[in-house]
Formats: sequence, structure tokens, C-alpha cells
Amino acid sequence: MHPDPFTAPLPPLTLGFTGNRIDRDDRIRRDPEALWAMTMNPAARWLVLDQLNPVVRSGTESPELLWVRRSEAPRADAVFLGIDAEGAPRFAVAGTASDLDDGEPMDARALASRLDGATAGLVAQARSLVDWHARHGFCAACGAATRPDKGGYARVCQGCAAEHFPRTDPVAIMLAIDLERDLCLLGRQPRFPKGFLSALAGFVEAGETFEEAVARELYEEAGIRTGRVRYVASQPWPFPSNLMMGAFAEATSFEIRIDEEELEEVAWMSRDDVRSALAGTGPFAVPPPLAIAHTLLKAWIDL
Amino acid sequence: MHPDPFTAPLPPLTLGFTGNRIDRDDRIRRDPEALWAMTMNPAARWLVLDQLNPVVRSGTESPELLWVRRSEAPRADAVFLGIDAEGAPRFAVAGTASDLDDGEPMDARALASRLDGATAGLVAQARSLVDWHARHGFCAACGAATRPDKGGYARVCQGCAAEHFPRTDPVAIMLAIDLERDLCLLGRQPRFPKGFLSALAGFVEAGETFEEAVARELYEEAGIRTGRVRYVASQPWPFPSNLMMGAFAEATSFEIRIDEEELEEVAWMSRDDVRSALAGTGPFAVPPPLAIAHTLLKAWIDL
Repeated sequence: MHPDPFTAPLPPLTLGFTGNRIDRDDRIRRDPEALWAMTMNPAARWLVLDQLNPVVRSGTESPELLWVRRSEAPRADAVFLGIDAEGAPRFAVAGTASDLDDGEPMDARALASRLDGATAGLVAQARSLVDWHARHGFCAACGAATRPDKGGYARVCQGCAAEHFPRTDPVAIMLAIDLERDLCLLGRQPRFPKGFLSALAGFVEAGETFEEAVARELYEEAGIRTGRVRYVASQPWPFPSNLMMGAFAEATSFEIRIDEEELEEVAWMSRDDVRSALAGTGPFAVPPPLAIAHTLLKAWIDL
Repeated sequence: MHPDPFTAPLPPLTLGFTGNRIDRDDRIRRDPEALWAMTMNPAARWLVLDQLNPVVRSGTESPELLWVRRSEAPRADAVFLGIDAEGAPRFAVAGTASDLDDGEPMDARALASRLDGATAGLVAQARSLVDWHARHGFCAACGAATRPDKGGYARVCQGCAAEHFPRTDPVAIMLAIDLERDLCLLGRQPRFPKGFLSALAGFVEAGETFEEAVARELYEEAGIRTGRVRYVASQPWPFPSNLMMGAFAEATSFEIRIDEEELEEVAWMSRDDVRSALAGTGPFAVPPPLAIAHTLLKAWIDL
């Protein structure tokens, strides 16, 4: 008999992309002179993203971010990430890896899975913000061109002066649990490889709580009704800029009715099968430790 | 001695704007024919928002949303809210109250505080989405005009075909707690009236977890360092489209250093003073039951 996942203390959790310790210092963002001083600080360093892939040092065994000086950084609008533990200002900017000595772009997801959480969190911050600027050159309210402001944490319309802020899209991701049979619900999106299963997920919409979004998504995608919902943890996910909010959801109906446009397969899985899957020896594959779906599955079997 | 707010079971919570029970049926949104059938359904009804203020029936003692038929609804793009418990399709659309018989606009916040949670949640959904359309007539990627799609849950660029989706902005709102002295931290923004205090809050940014956002905001706004963070509840807040995520935060430093651009006053308050404030007899005022700050304060004193 396992403890109730909705009231038992949670086991220690490991979460990808978390632990970002940069001091974002929002007072600097608001102060153009302070921002300029940050830029001119000799200790300042820039991370270049080439097609949103962070540039890493060439030829190292473990990937290492290539932080370049002002003189080497692309002459483009940069995002102020913050001040690191040694007091050095850090920026992120779009550019081309081949313009840099000893650098090459690396897929952000592959990179993050090999970095510590704090560095991966910084990469998430950089990738989400550089991407947002790349896709928001114009004002959604009037169509005129916008320019970056506040160290990259806003864009201002040059036509109507409207201010626009970076998006962070909350996503509900949940493990529905059948308490009686001790099973959890996993599904496969059409874009996933065969034999790969994950927790169900969807964007939180206007006019609903996180808990209501959990229940709605489970019903829409799998026909499952929800009782209690327990928030477990959250994680930034920079593809492009999601806040993944993970939950356990108590299933109160059990017959699966798949939304075939969203999912190709949904099934109830046993604790033993999930344990094997997490160990890489299962009857199916699950997301890697970088993803909060992994954290949710591990939390459930470790309860 | 009170139980530990970070591990004790939470008392029952009351939350404004929650309990929206409309069936949003996202399969209908994706199917233009099904959407058209919803529009032509004789039971379909429209809620008109005039300058984002929902139109209510004139002359009733308790406010009552005015749901109009298709023939009376403004001839403008409407948002499909979903299907109600009686099977009737419900829409929201921008319009003018004076064009309707027996209707007048009412401030959404004042209205919501007098509606049941489910209806207030529906008003939140309507207001956030109608507002998003009003401010997103153009493509942020290329500046061309956009048109609504998917029943109002997307806009498509008529130039570059980029798809844009409604925003939901996650906000961390937290009660920092001094466990030893049994106090909580409240603050006053410059726009609040004198004598009014609330929980501190700020947007969750790219590259951070909800818990990291809680700690960052407490440090930025009040100089307070954070230990444990406990998610308590969430709430939609349609001004314009926030997802308020409420937490208790364990203070590990106690000396207040105010960010004077954000706050005019920050102070540690006792449980007795908070109890009086919630009862309306306190040495200061706190947000009304509609706001999750109220829920957090009540949860803390009820632990």
C-alpha cells in the first residue's frame, strides 16, 4: 500500500533547467545609464545564440558556453541576463557562430541535458528572450516597428508607443493517477517516436485556474474526469518560452477516449512498468531527466 | 504554537474567479463547420463587452449578465466561450451597450465580486480574450494585419501566415512568513490607497521556476531572502489576462529594504492584525475576497 499521492510529503525532486542564480537586478533594466555601465564593464560577457542554438567552445569534451567580450560580440541588441556571482554582467545576443573564434552552435535541449541546472536555467532565459525579440519586431496593436527597451525585457512601439513584454506561457502537465488500481496515465503525441510515452499536457487558458486546466486537458485529450489536483513543481522550458507546471491529478473516471488530433495512444501504466521505463529497461520509453514529466513519474514511484 | 505553514494541510480555500464550468470543447474550435453550427444554434447566446465592461441587464437588484441572441449581437468577430450545462453555445463579443435593449456596462471587477465563481470565471474568460483580440490586430513578426481563427483562440497573419495565440501571464503572489515571530510581509504599491496592504507579487520571467520567481520578487521588492516556497492555489485575473499563482514563502532574512519604484511601504504584520484586517476592523485594509491575496491571508490565519 502506497501513501496517498495527494497528501503524502513529496520525495526530493530533481528538475531540469532550474537553479538559475543570476541576479537579474530589475533596477538596472529600468536605468539606461546603469545598463550602459554594465555594457562597458570590462568583465561583461555575451552569450551568442545562432538560430537560437547557444554557441559553445569548440573541441571540449563536456560542453562549455562560450562567453565572449564586447569586442567580439555581434553588434546587435542584446538582452541583459543579469550579474553573475563574481559581479560580471552577462548578456545574450543573436549572432553567427562562424564569426567567433573557437565556437560552434549546439542544440539547446541537447546542451541543457549536459549542463548543471543553474547554467541550463541561464540558457533557458537567454533562448526564450532572444527568440521573443526575433519574433516581435512589430507592434501587435498598430503594426508599426518596435524597438527593444529595458535591457531586453520590453519592446516599445515607434508608432503608438505601446509597451510589449516577453511572454511566458503557463502549461499544465499532469500525471493522472488511478488510486485503486495504482496506475498512471501516459500518452503519445503523433510527433513522438513509437514506444515513447509522456504525461499529458496543455496550455492554461484565460478564465481558468491551473487546477481547472489540468481537469480540462485530461477530459479533452483522454476523456478522464479529475478529482483532487496536487501541484508538484514547475520548470522553465525554453521551446519557446513555457512555464511547465507539474501536477498529480486524481482520476475519477477510467475509460479512455482519445482525442486523435492530439494523441495517438493513451494508456494506464503500472508503477513497475514506470520504474523500468525510468531505468531505461521498460516496455516503453519516457522523457529524460531534463523534462518535468520525468520528475513527475519519479516522484510518483518514489512516494 | 501554529502548525508549519509549509507542511500542514491547508484549510479549505475560497477563490474568486474560479469554478468556470463551461465546456470549451477545443474540437469545435478547430472545425469551422462545427463552429458555424454553434453560431446558428437557436439556443446560442452572446455576452457583449463594452470597453471591456460586460453588459448586464438594466434595473435588476443583483447584477445579471445580459445574454443576447444572434439577431441582437454586434456584427463583429466573436469568441466561442464554450457550451453551457444546458447545451447552449456561448460567445463573447465587443460592442456597445446602448445598442442593446435593457443593457448597461458594468466594471468587471465590481461585477465579479457580486457573481458566483463559475459565472465570474466565465466573465474572466470573456474579458481576457476580447481584450487580447482588441490589442492584437497586427502580426508581431511582420506587421501585417491578422484575422481571428479557431473560434477566437488564435489569430493568423494575412501576410506571413504566422499563428498567434492568446497570452496568459503567470504571476507569482506570495505571503512571506517569519516563522519565529509569526508575522507575514505585506506591502503597498503607490497606486493603492493609504492604509491598504497586500501580498507582494510579480510576473514569472523566462528561465525561472515559479518558486524562483517568488524568491526573486521578495528580494527585489523588499530585500527579503527566501527558504521554502509552498504553492497554495491559482486564480485567473482578467486585468488583462493573468494567472495568479499564490504561495507561502519562508523568510530567511527579515530586514526590509524597499524598492521604492515598486512599493511605498512594506511591513511585517501579526496574525492578530491580519485577522482584524480580514474582518474589516483592522489597523489596515486588505484586498477583498475576490483577490487571491485575500485567500492567502485567510489560509495563513486559518492554519
